[in-house]
Amino acid sequence: MVIPSLIQHKRDGNAIAPEDWARLVADYTAGRIPDYQISALLMAVVFRGLAPDELAALTDAMLASGDRLEFDGFAVPRVDKHSTGGVGDKVSLLLAPMVASCGVAVPMMSGRGLGHTGGTLDKLESIPGFRTGLSLAEARAQIERIGCAMLGQTPEIAPADRKLYALRDVTGTVESIPLIAASIMSKKLAEGLNGLVLDVKTGSGAFIPEPDRAVELARTMIALGETRGCPTVALLTAMDRPLGRACGHSLEVEEALEGLQGRGPKDLMEVTYALGCEMLLLVGAATDAADARRRLEASVSSGRALETFGRVIEAQGGNRAVIDDPAILPQAGAVEVFRAPRSGVVAAVEPRRIGRAILELGGGRVTIEDEIDPSVGFVITVKPGDAVRAGDPIASVFARDDVGVAGGLSALAEAISIGEEGRLTPLITHRITARGVEVRTGVR
Amino acid sequence: MVIPSLIQHKRDGNAIAPEDWARLVADYTAGRIPDYQISALLMAVVFRGLAPDELAALTDAMLASGDRLEFDGFAVPRVDKHSTGGVGDKVSLLLAPMVASCGVAVPMMSGRGLGHTGGTLDKLESIPGFRTGLSLAEARAQIERIGCAMLGQTPEIAPADRKLYALRDVTGTVESIPLIAASIMSKKLAEGLNGLVLDVKTGSGAFIPEPDRAVELARTMIALGETRGCPTVALLTAMDRPLGRACGHSLEVEEALEGLQGRGPKDLMEVTYALGCEMLLLVGAATDAADARRRLEASVSSGRALETFGRVIEAQGGNRAVIDDPAILPQAGAVEVFRAPRSGVVAAVEPRRIGRAILELGGGRVTIEDEIDPSVGFVITVKPGDAVRAGDPIASVFARDDVGVAGGLSALAEAISIGEEGRLTPLITHRITARGVEVRTGVR
Repeated sequence: MVIPSLIQHKRDGNAIAPEDWARLVADYTAGRIPDYQISALLMAVVFRGLAPDELAALTDAMLASGDRLEFDGFAVPRVDKHSTGGVGDKVSLLLAPMVASCGVAVPMMSGRGLGHTGGTLDKLESIPGFRTGLSLAEARAQIERIGCAMLGQTPEIAPADRKLYALRDVTGTVESIPLIAASIMSKKLAEGLNGLVLDVKTGSGAFIPEPDRAVELARTMIALGETRGCPTVALLTAMDRPLGRACGHSLEVEEALEGLQGRGPKDLMEVTYALGCEMLLLVGAATDAADARRRLEASVSSGRALETFGRVIEAQGGNRAVIDDPAILPQAGAVEVFRAPRSGVVAAVEPRRIGRAILELGGGRVTIEDEIDPSVGFVITVKPGDAVRAGDPIASVFARDDVGVAGGLSALAEAISIGEEGRLTPLITHRITARGVEVRTGVR
Repeated sequence: MVIPSLIQHKRDGNAIAPEDWARLVADYTAGRIPDYQISALLMAVVFRGLAPDELAALTDAMLASGDRLEFDGFAVPRVDKHSTGGVGDKVSLLLAPMVASCGVAVPMMSGRGLGHTGGTLDKLESIPGFRTGLSLAEARAQIERIGCAMLGQTPEIAPADRKLYALRDVTGTVESIPLIAASIMSKKLAEGLNGLVLDVKTGSGAFIPEPDRAVELARTMIALGETRGCPTVALLTAMDRPLGRACGHSLEVEEALEGLQGRGPKDLMEVTYALGCEMLLLVGAATDAADARRRLEASVSSGRALETFGRVIEAQGGNRAVIDDPAILPQAGAVEVFRAPRSGVVAAVEPRRIGRAILELGGGRVTIEDEIDPSVGFVITVKPGDAVRAGDPIASVFARDDVGVAGGLSALAEAISIGEEGRLTPLITHRITARGVEVRTGVR
């Protein structure tokens, strides 16, 4: 295996043999191939893509580089959800306990926030004491006991992906559909799942804004899952505005708790129910979509989902009193209302600007080592298409101090545009399975 | 300057600002940017190319990374020739002394052979004692004294190119017209020239076989030279068969000496005269092409060119007796004649196979550290289109021993194909100047 020849081969539009991909990944992970050759190869992949058997070999090699969650002798089916990331996306916090309280196990392995999007792990860690750094053995024991664990990617899972992602992050090679798909699926396939649901975001706040490329990413991941014994379904959901009202770590945990008590914003609940239905159906835990929806709604109305969340919090060292008293969460030092500067119709609530503003308030990361302030953020009560009158309170800023408040207010002025007209785009636009793509635009 | 953003910018088809190219090259040369970011950027350049002002900035930055030959107060015009490399290409050995003996200075900086092509420095070093590692000060003094120096790229010249080339060589990023052009021109522009002639090879044995891409490379280099005070002209010449008869280091020096004595093969002399005419015309050392040709022919017939070569050899520590006694050159241990295996017409003499065979005989390099055996090689007396009869002696193998001879004979059997018909393609196909491209197909 001569590395420069393999690089040239891919550069010229040819496929690298599956066994060569396996050796490339193994040798790179073991430090036997220098970064500068792999980064050039990855850039060639950005331009040339990967043939299906190349992608399969790359994913399998990344998966094989580490350990897996093994559930020998545990009969409860396991299912997980992965989101490509957005602003205000606290779906995982509701979904894992809801599905788990319907009798399906949820081994949910999440990531940290980077750039303009928040991460589930960071949100969970705003709950005092909550520990996301479980070992695989701890996670397995907790899942078998209470049906759910919410943890970070352990060092044991796909170390090849960890090393490759760190290199991609600094060499302009993140934005490649096959590389994104291999990275996500190598981790998800390590969870020992019987089914996987993908929430692929589209719109201006998504990493891949264009719907056609989002569909391509979804289909690529579905093909990888289905051929590896993990039935996979994807929903394309709107990220041209934040999801729900709360954006920021403590604020989103509080909104998730409200959702688990039946008081969540409609868009957040619709996305959560839609993803939850797919999860139940994938493992046969409901007879049809209506049955799945009823079961999920009952998990909320009965209080079982909230109770399961409380048990997860307790099991992972957190203060479960938070479910009755969200004031336990870190609170912002200064809060201020933002009022509509003019009368009209909300034309846009720009998620990237909101995400960046959270970062500016100290609630995000530029590098993976940065400390975050979980208390800061925004609550935005309007959506595109809503009519407003000048002076109406339409949002709030949560900041450390008055300087932060001033910055937050000006960010809101930039993010929320009010004009003559506005339109709320459909919330869930496509459902994608191994059989094909269905367009769905009923729910806004 | 955020490197990953610059890489993404180029990846997405945008131009990097000239000042950013300048800092990229300076910071990389100083070790402040890691190899893995530059290799990803270079791969993006392979796919996206460089806009003219990006290419200019890159070339200038590489040039500025080192020293130049300075000729303050030296009134004689300077001109050089660069070849993109081929098999049997010993033109530089004849051309430098011929042009120098016409009263034009030739500061000829050459490279080493790598892969299937030989390098001028290696050929010169087959002359006992010949030293190519001159300092810039030594080279300048010698050029002012005898009008010619034949040296290697000193560590003082374009260190950025040296570092970038080493990286490109192992990351599949050599084959990019703007990167090739920048690499060549950053070194040539450091020679303090008043004119430059490019011999761009085409055909199966050339690094860039396709004539249209060779024209593009020529035009790219011409534009760089012309806008930097160095009038530049290119000839496209055939490398679908070896040039001349001798292939191998000692053998090529011997053939060059024959050429300087008026006994060289016709194709070798035609290419040499054509390039020499351009060199004289570029600096006004001849009134027109016919005058230039007369001067060059006179330099040979009068013995002045051979005398100049002798002075160069002597000045650089070599044994000048070689010009009268080529047997001083390293001699092969075993020589054998190759006979035509059948009657017919020579269809092809494949230069890459010949180049690879020299390597197999020990006369080439796979890595830059390899020692070469200058005595081995081939003399091939037929060209495509020549009629032969079975049993005719049409080539000779020069090897270390009988094992080498056997390998060399089988290489010749593969390289020389004899069929029902064959055709000699034109030797010089295009003349390219800043004003445009002329097609020339008279000489074969």
